[in-house]
Parts: sequence; structure tokens; C-alpha cells
Amino acid sequence: MNFADRIHQRITSLKSHLVVGIDPDPSRVIAPTSAFARAFPSEDPETILENFCRIVLEAARHTACAVKPQVAFFESMGIMGWRVLAKCIKQARNLGIPVILDAKRGDIGSTAQAYARAYLDPSSDFYADALTVNPFLGPDTLEPFVRAASASGSGLFILVKTSNPGSVALQDAVLGDGSRLCHKVARMVDELAQQYVGECGYSTIGAVVGATYPEDVAALRQVMPRSILLVPGYGAQGATASDVKAAFNQDGHGAVVNASRSIIFAYEKREHPDREQIFQAVAEAAQAARDDIEQAISRR
Amino acid sequence: MNFADRIHQRITSLKSHLVVGIDPDPSRVIAPTSAFARAFPSEDPETILENFCRIVLEAARHTACAVKPQVAFFESMGIMGWRVLAKCIKQARNLGIPVILDAKRGDIGSTAQAYARAYLDPSSDFYADALTVNPFLGPDTLEPFVRAASASGSGLFILVKTSNPGSVALQDAVLGDGSRLCHKVARMVDELAQQYVGECGYSTIGAVVGATYPEDVAALRQVMPRSILLVPGYGAQGATASDVKAAFNQDGHGAVVNASRSIIFAYEKREHPDREQIFQAVAEAAQAARDDIEQAISRR
Repeated sequence: MNFADRIHQRITSLKSHLVVGIDPDPSRVIAPTSAFARAFPSEDPETILENFCRIVLEAARHTACAVKPQVAFFESMGIMGWRVLAKCIKQARNLGIPVILDAKRGDIGSTAQAYARAYLDPSSDFYADALTVNPFLGPDTLEPFVRAASASGSGLFILVKTSNPGSVALQDAVLGDGSRLCHKVARMVDELAQQYVGECGYSTIGAVVGATYPEDVAALRQVMPRSILLVPGYGAQGATASDVKAAFNQDGHGAVVNASRSIIFAYEKREHPDREQIFQAVAEAAQAARDDIEQAISRR
Repeated sequence: MNFADRIHQRITSLKSHLVVGIDPDPSRVIAPTSAFARAFPSEDPETILENFCRIVLEAARHTACAVKPQVAFFESMGIMGWRVLAKCIKQARNLGIPVILDAKRGDIGSTAQAYARAYLDPSSDFYADALTVNPFLGPDTLEPFVRAASASGSGLFILVKTSNPGSVALQDAVLGDGSRLCHKVARMVDELAQQYVGECGYSTIGAVVGATYPEDVAALRQVMPRSILLVPGYGAQGATASDVKAAFNQDGHGAVVNASRSIIFAYEKREHPDREQIFQAVAEAAQAARDDIEQAISRR
């Protein structure tokens, strides 16, 4: 079963389009003064980070259709971070939670192949269910990722329109024909997506479309009817459930909505939370985000 | 001394604008059937990979103004690859060779900060002299990299025009005003570059401009007069020394030219090379590439 069918099945059975982003900012997780580290006194940073990932995975287990580890935060902790990332991916797999690795990789030729091997080859330490990729280098640079994903039944989310204010500079650049660059990328994604449609009707080739620009979401939804949209920006970045509605098709599917900081750091509202309170706060925040998103979709 | 001044000093003293790319494709380095691995019988893959990096660094020591490890290849070998990358960076530093890490990272806000910490913070396992970054997400996503580079005196090379055929799709997209997207990115780079000019007259904010499109190189050179251009495409990718000339200013500076496979795998022309022959072939290929490039520059 390919990635689109696997995640579709899980979305249907859990009734959840929520992706929980795992963004272990070291200043909020392993720094000795952080609320999280204080709940694990006398543990070393690696053990603390492992516990953070484990708690998030267990707390999100029944409410998230997928988790999305942000590779940058692991990478920023050096070799130790990479060791924990590999363990986190394996643990998610053991719990049956699909892993979308947010790495935004992109390069040419044999280098793109190397990145694809790192994340889409089942023999890799970092093998994931899906990977985010950056299309700036051109369609030929997406091919190695598409081939690898097709071979291992994994998925891709290609950056089309990101959630940051500065995304307007290049992604919204107006082309000679009056269209915007992100629409050109979207057409590129759609062309690939049509070749890899699963039984659920959606493709393993998806797209990242930020929720912070709701009018764009609706337009890009039309350009890529077969693609699952990975929608960041909900929660800490300011977009609401109502803003993300436009990412969904009439069938109530076709998108997954990511929330990271608003869920994984939910316990920071309490003073000196213990391990159980951390777990509870994360689980409740995930449940609340799931319910909020599902209600918005049902009101379409 | 900042990155621009450091590399300028080395360029002047070695009389070399050559960057040797370290692209340890596992099929050519650690695969038991590869010429390299056969010169290290009964060694484990990690030791073989370490030896590969060590030999390239020592062979390029007196002919390369910098080395450019391609992170993707290390990443494709999992946690072991990251361990060796950290060692390779440290060894280059011990030999006094500046390291340009080719990682093409890019992300938003706190995530971009995390990538910057991974590669531009002196306390990181992967701290380098300079980093390649992808501008697709917008100018706000470059800021955390620029701040980190400025703090640690390291450099950035922002992707402007890559050397692959498909780079035309987005980087050459024609905008409403008739200009191309890569020129818009180049103006963005120039604006940043002007704020970080070293004593040598060049900036720590450079750009990647592929040599496979010589007419573009000349035009982009004009748009970014203060930036050091990192020019890939020479050697195995087909560009010649004459093609790269346009990247240089009248002063004979302003660019560094990367060659990877044509140098680091030069020993593959021999049958069953031993360790000494491997070292010799790499050293000679680096010397030949250096001479070829310097001659072309002097004929400008």
C-alpha cells in the first residue's frame, strides 16, 4: 500500500487530519532551565531528547494521522541529534504512526539521489514515510526523489507556497503571462501527482501550501486536485481552522494540517509540570487541535 | 578575519581559485567492489570513508583554496556518515583548509535558525567556514543564516543559478518586467552582500552560479559585484576553464571554481590503484585543474 493509501486509511479510521510537528527546539527541550528538562533532572541531553520524542509520539498516537519531525532541530544538536532522530522514526513506526520528515532537501543529479537514499530508502537510518522537498533547482532535480518514493511506496510533499511573510518575494513573483511562480510549481507538482494516484484517489506526490494565505490555498487546491496538501501555519503561526478549510476538497479530504509548537509545548503553560502532566497537556492539545480542524472541515 | 578575507588570503598565497568538492558517493567509496574500498581490504566502511576524506584533504592541501563536502553523500550513509563528516571538517580545519559545506538548506523562522546553528555556530559538530543556502522560501528565511554567519565570521553562498539543465524552469522564469527570476535573487544577494564587505573588497555573502551557462555567468557577475561566486559545473559536468572565466572580475578575483568527481575519483582511470597511487592521482588532478583555471583567468 503506498503512502497516499496508508495515510488516507489512518485519517479515516482516526477521524483526524492533524499532523503533529516534532520541533525539539533545544532551548525548550534540553536546556537545563527549560520546563521539559526540569522534569528529567540528572538525565543527560540525549536521554531528555529521546523522552521528549517518546512523549510526543505516545500523546499523539490516537489523534494524529502523522507526525512531522523537523530535521533542522535534530541537525542543530549534531551527531547526538541524528541518533535520536533515527530512534524517533523507528519508535513512530513501531507505534504505527506515519512519519513525514520535514527536511526540505533539494539538489541536482547524483546529489538528489543521495538525499533520496537518506530518507526514502528502507535501509537508511532515517527512512521515513514521506519527505518534504524544495523544487527551486528544477523538475529534473525532483525526479530522483519521485523514483525513490515510487520504489519504496513513500510520499513527497513539494514546497509550493510556504507560510512565512517573505514567501511572497519569489513564490508569488508574477510571471510574463500574469500567473505567479507558485502556480507554475503547482502545475509541475500536478503533472507528477497524476502519475502516482493511489486507490483512495489521492497521489503520493503532495504539496506544502501554507494556511497563512487562505485565498492562495483555495486557488492552489484547484491546480493540484490529486495532491494531498500539507498545510503548515495553523496554531502558533496564527492561521485558524477556518483558514485551513480551503485546503480540503468537497469529499472532506485532500489535506493534512500541521501544528507543532502549540501542541508539543502545551505543558509550558503550567508551572513546573511533571512527566505525567507534560504527557497530559500534549495529548489534550493534540485532541483539541484535531477536534477544531475536524469541525471546520465538516462545516464546509 | 571574516570568511571573505580568509579565503582571499588563501587564494592569493596558493595562487588557486580551485575548490575541491568532496562527494563520497558510497557506490564509489565504501562499496566493496569499488576501486577505493579495494585499496583498504579488511577495513570497515567507516574507516574507509574516513580514509577517503583524509586522502582528498591531504592531496588538495596545497592546491585548493577550499574544500566543499557535499552533505547529501554523508547524509545518505546515516549516522555513520554524519560522524565522518564531523571528523572531515575538523581535519580540514587542522590542515588550514577552509570548508564550504554544500547543504543547500533553507527553511523559515526558528527552523532556519536551527539550520544556522547546525553549520555556522562554532560549538556545532558540523561548524564550517561557509554554507550553501536555498533562497526559495524568501528573504526573511535568509536572515537567520546571515546573522549567524556575521556572528561567527563565516560565509554564505546563496543559490542563484544552478548548473543542471532543469534550472531553467524556475530560475529562468521570465517575470512581468521581462527580467528573469535568477536576476531577482541576484539583486537580493547583492543587497545583503553590500552590508558584509571584507577588507579584500569582497563580501562574506556569495552566490552559487553554475558554469554550464556562461552567458548567464557574465550577466550575474555584473549584478553582484561584491559577491564571491561559487561556480560548479567545471569538470565532470562539462564546463571548461574558458566557460568559467566570465565569473571573474577584472582584478582576477571574485569567484571560486568547484570540481568534484573529476578530481576525487581521478584514480579510477588506473587498474587496482594502491593507496599511494590514489593519493597521487587525486593530487595531480587537483594540480591540473588549478593550473587550467589559473591560466584561463590570466588570459582574460
